[in-house]
Amino acid sequence: MERVRSSEVAARVGQRVRVVGWLQSLRRLGAISFLIVRDGAGIVQAIADHERLAPLTGAEAESVVAVTGEVCIERQAPGGVELRDIAIEVIVEATEPPPVLLGKKLANVGLPALLDHAVVANRFPTRRAVFRIGAAAMRGFRALLDAEQFVEIQSPKLVEAATEGGANVFAVDYFGRPAYLAQSPQLYKQIMVGVFERVYEVGPVFRAEPHDTARHINQYTSLDVEIGFISDHLDVMAQLTRVLRGMLAEVARACAAELALLGAALPEVPDVIPYLHFTEALELLAAPLGEAVRGEPDLSPAAERWLGQWAREHHGSDWLFVTGYPMRKRPFYTHPDPERPEHSRSFDLLFRGTELVTGGQRLHRHASYLAALEARGMTGESIAAYLEAFRHGMPPHGGFAIGLERFLMQLLDLPNIRLATLFPRDLARLSP
Amino acid sequence: MERVRSSEVAARVGQRVRVVGWLQSLRRLGAISFLIVRDGAGIVQAIADHERLAPLTGAEAESVVAVTGEVCIERQAPGGVELRDIAIEVIVEATEPPPVLLGKKLANVGLPALLDHAVVANRFPTRRAVFRIGAAAMRGFRALLDAEQFVEIQSPKLVEAATEGGANVFAVDYFGRPAYLAQSPQLYKQIMVGVFERVYEVGPVFRAEPHDTARHINQYTSLDVEIGFISDHLDVMAQLTRVLRGMLAEVARACAAELALLGAALPEVPDVIPYLHFTEALELLAAPLGEAVRGEPDLSPAAERWLGQWAREHHGSDWLFVTGYPMRKRPFYTHPDPERPEHSRSFDLLFRGTELVTGGQRLHRHASYLAALEARGMTGESIAAYLEAFRHGMPPHGGFAIGLERFLMQLLDLPNIRLATLFPRDLARLSP
Repeated sequence: MERVRSSEVAARVGQRVRVVGWLQSLRRLGAISFLIVRDGAGIVQAIADHERLAPLTGAEAESVVAVTGEVCIERQAPGGVELRDIAIEVIVEATEPPPVLLGKKLANVGLPALLDHAVVANRFPTRRAVFRIGAAAMRGFRALLDAEQFVEIQSPKLVEAATEGGANVFAVDYFGRPAYLAQSPQLYKQIMVGVFERVYEVGPVFRAEPHDTARHINQYTSLDVEIGFISDHLDVMAQLTRVLRGMLAEVARACAAELALLGAALPEVPDVIPYLHFTEALELLAAPLGEAVRGEPDLSPAAERWLGQWAREHHGSDWLFVTGYPMRKRPFYTHPDPERPEHSRSFDLLFRGTELVTGGQRLHRHASYLAALEARGMTGESIAAYLEAFRHGMPPHGGFAIGLERFLMQLLDLPNIRLATLFPRDLARLSP
Repeated sequence: MERVRSSEVAARVGQRVRVVGWLQSLRRLGAISFLIVRDGAGIVQAIADHERLAPLTGAEAESVVAVTGEVCIERQAPGGVELRDIAIEVIVEATEPPPVLLGKKLANVGLPALLDHAVVANRFPTRRAVFRIGAAAMRGFRALLDAEQFVEIQSPKLVEAATEGGANVFAVDYFGRPAYLAQSPQLYKQIMVGVFERVYEVGPVFRAEPHDTARHINQYTSLDVEIGFISDHLDVMAQLTRVLRGMLAEVARACAAELALLGAALPEVPDVIPYLHFTEALELLAAPLGEAVRGEPDLSPAAERWLGQWAREHHGSDWLFVTGYPMRKRPFYTHPDPERPEHSRSFDLLFRGTELVTGGQRLHRHASYLAALEARGMTGESIAAYLEAFRHGMPPHGGFAIGLERFLMQLLDLPNIRLATLFPRDLARLSP
């Protein structure tokens, strides 16, 4: 009999079907046993008396099984149907119990066990839901940008020099020469604005940050966008707003069941996300956080949380742009505000009081790069090939980068970014 | 006046429009000059007398310019229109000529110059066409798989062990511990079949192969697919066939102009691509290449070329699967043919006589992995976390990987794979 995916079972009431997947659980209740079979699409419940379970002798949970049975309405069961009068066939037997068993809550399994045994733990519905939502977010990101005539690029991950600041790079032995893993596609996406005007890349970036926190991993997935022919950073912020709406629209369309399982509600993204200049933010913060805040060059986590609350109360928005960060806290390619040159045409986007995206306008004139590098005591020698693009006509441009895992962590209110990552890499973890 | 993209100019005959982009060329013909302005979408011709060119004094080709003029029909011009009665504004001046100038043919620029100055060379239409076709191929790949309920994944690129064979890995200093750049997402995509049944990944892979040939680069973009619940490798071949059709359909839909510019014709992909068993292939090859071929464990490039010709003559196909390669030439995770255990359930796909894709069924039982590793003198210790998945129920599965740059090289008949790569990495090249 041909296989039916779990998602199609409810449409076959009264028919006999064959479901093939993993034996997620087997629970005996008196004379009757309840089986949950999981496949790529979802789960199906089946019931059987002990006799019918004979083929499962010795087969532990996670065995690959085929269950053939009649589809019957059962309101208590997942999807409102269950299989009865079943026959079971074990296709690939698991001979030992799973190293972790996940129910609806992660709380009963410690994070180290979850990560050590991710090859199995990632199979469970609450884990799958996170990664399906991540896949939908990537799909929405690309769909929006494809529709706006962006071109997808793939940039080198092995580079000659650190570009996003000094020390936090992984060193690679490149045929006996020193090389580094790219911290971002920043320089390449800028160069490619000279080629296609509008580009994006979805790919891994590598940060050798020696931080052991709930918000740091050392490889993450960066959703990078860069646009040419902008007026200023406000155009970039408008583009980011459209991208976020596209991402969330696809998550809403494709992942209703996953969101429900995780108890997550998607935020609204206003047509225009409210924004504050950095100096205005400090003014607001002086009252709750103290006058000393006026001298700060950056926003502390406490300041971001307060501003997030302020945006919710004053604008009904989970989102808030802060613009005009001081130049000295931003990378060398940052475009200054011509009217207040100590401030930048850059922004952070706060989501529910935490920074989620950084972006802004970049320098586009060759002479500006030379001056910016000199002011920072950098020679530019190791990025000479990159600077060449600016000697041959680069339009005003800007962009942003969204960390996929951080997006998922904040969207789904996960307690640790590792839970938004299939197989995280951190200070201690290089496996699985 | 609002900017009009070059692709929209032909629809505005009789109107004045403002085009913004790069001054690709300026050619004087008697009293009249012809300007070509290029933007992200394409090119537009404008004509002017010398007086109108005054703003361009000192501005070299590739300066960023705005040209406002009346759209007039001109059959000789690109797109059948040109701008007349123009006003020119230089937005960002290029003060030195481009390091390379590319016309329709690459032949007039040497490959090293093209690669050294890729940040500018990639702007020219023949180069852009290649990368646009690559972006369309990726889009088609994902669209087909999304429609078939595959889930996109992002796997770690920093790993503990080489998986695709011994020495050709780049070593990374991972916080003082040895790590390697992933040669493929092979092990992770298999594990993820246990999670989602059907997965794909588009991402960089790293091969430290010290080969300086026209077909080798050391980072490339791998389009990876893995499917569970297959019967055998024929299911994988059918999936690959659908994927190729999806990729080429999107290239055909989105890139007609690019294909025309490059003089490339897309191949037909038959519903069922013809296939030959490895032993049948050797039988056919014995006559043209000599009897000694019968003892070969693999197909030489000459053998592949002959088979490509044979497929064209006997099946009218640019494509040919060769199945059943000897096990000893395939990696440890390869599934043997139960009826001829020295042969595998793997395949190569030849396109116009050159290998383009490798794939097959994988082992799925834990005991099979232990036996396969032992037979090869491997301990499996460094991939213990990966093997854990196979102790907990893995269905029969298989997959394949398409190298994007090799696909483009063969599809577009490029003489060197570096020409299918934005910023190639090879033995000598780590920049730009």
